[in-house]
Amino acid sequence: MTNEILRQLHERKSVRVYDPDRPVTVEEKRQLLEAALAAPTAGCMCLYTILDITDQEIKDRLAVLCDHQPFIATAPVVLVFLADWQRWYDSFVAAGVDAPRTPAEGDLFLAASDAVIAAQNVVMAAQSMNLGSCYIGDVLENGEQIAELLNIPSYAMPVAMLCIGAPTQQQKLRKKPVRFPLEALVHENGYHRAGPEALATMHSARADSEKNGFPEAVLAMERRKWSSTFMAEMNRSVAAWMNRWVKGEVQG
Amino acid sequence: MTNEILRQLHERKSVRVYDPDRPVTVEEKRQLLEAALAAPTAGCMCLYTILDITDQEIKDRLAVLCDHQPFIATAPVVLVFLADWQRWYDSFVAAGVDAPRTPAEGDLFLAASDAVIAAQNVVMAAQSMNLGSCYIGDVLENGEQIAELLNIPSYAMPVAMLCIGAPTQQQKLRKKPVRFPLEALVHENGYHRAGPEALATMHSARADSEKNGFPEAVLAMERRKWSSTFMAEMNRSVAAWMNRWVKGEVQG
Repeated sequence: MTNEILRQLHERKSVRVYDPDRPVTVEEKRQLLEAALAAPTAGCMCLYTILDITDQEIKDRLAVLCDHQPFIATAPVVLVFLADWQRWYDSFVAAGVDAPRTPAEGDLFLAASDAVIAAQNVVMAAQSMNLGSCYIGDVLENGEQIAELLNIPSYAMPVAMLCIGAPTQQQKLRKKPVRFPLEALVHENGYHRAGPEALATMHSARADSEKNGFPEAVLAMERRKWSSTFMAEMNRSVAAWMNRWVKGEVQG
Repeated sequence: MTNEILRQLHERKSVRVYDPDRPVTVEEKRQLLEAALAAPTAGCMCLYTILDITDQEIKDRLAVLCDHQPFIATAPVVLVFLADWQRWYDSFVAAGVDAPRTPAEGDLFLAASDAVIAAQNVVMAAQSMNLGSCYIGDVLENGEQIAELLNIPSYAMPVAMLCIGAPTQQQKLRKKPVRFPLEALVHENGYHRAGPEALATMHSARADSEKNGFPEAVLAMERRKWSSTFMAEMNRSVAAWMNRWVKGEVQG
């Protein structure tokens, strides 16, 4: 069995270079955002806010703050997805609840899922409209500066960011990177921790040359990402976001 | 402009009652899982593991541990999505890296996004195959018991769960719950915190009767969810997951 949706789920790949001659129209952007709103949401609470970044100066700043990726500033559409309990917390107060409890870690995770689910609906909507998209995980970095730049209150936190635009011809032709085998990623009835041999087999399974196999690909990843300053910054920043969230530090 | 994907993104709604006469075939389940693997993933690292729960006794336990929802045990397909750095951490060790750094909070959030993005691809794949799905946010609760039940190692954590099966006729006819207006959920260039009047308007906008308006809907939500024992448990449990993650407490 196949169908249009399965086909496009498989075809979709990240797009980081946008055709400057093919803008995203106001109507298209509205359709992307409406697709986000159609997404599943815990208890129909819509625990997210989407920041639609249209100001070029803010895009430029985000390109710097999100690990110096200039292509961010060139994206016709930049959306930041916030996990958001501020709206409900303020609603409890507005409705007259006397000293509602403040959001905690579990609330944050639930809202983060809501936000990411909505983002992935936008990714699929974009794909269906011949638009390309790219997640920017680096929106987790430099939290204090991001919070100030985007005026983010205590009980909201950015968890995903999308750049969207029409792919250039070169991007359309780029190969989708190979995932790990299904057997490595899906376990039946419980976690089966892989031993060194199974891990080596898994990494080698997607190597397109000997130097991308095991242990080379893993060592390169450890060096380029795991030991990088940007991942250290991401960890520092998220710990600070968590602290801010739990303490409600800047609660007005 | 519309197309098949946009149409189905809007049509999709949660399904909690499954037609016992229409099982999910092995081939269908494989297609759901392959759709997950096609999802965007940070640096093509596939920072998630999917637990495919086929054992009825485990489904029964999950139905209890996830806030006592018996329908979970009746779902033909139950998938638990783990944020997972264990695979890469073990790979670093297997590749000979001397004392790699251990995962921290930012790593967890990045992996949680990967896991939820993959889950939402499964939701859309299911929709396209005339299967219904429902997220179970309550998989965040009772972490210690879930970890033991599913043999989850230190650097993995469940962040989403899906029940999947063919919808009954009654479920097909059920109305999709109304979201908040787009203007409340999408802000341009920065967060615009709504005041009491705007919040009241937002809540009333989706009320289907006076008693679902403002402040009634908000007060009911505060009482039924925000002040509930299950949300208190979710917060306790996620704080424990975070602690376990950061300390690597049961690291073998």
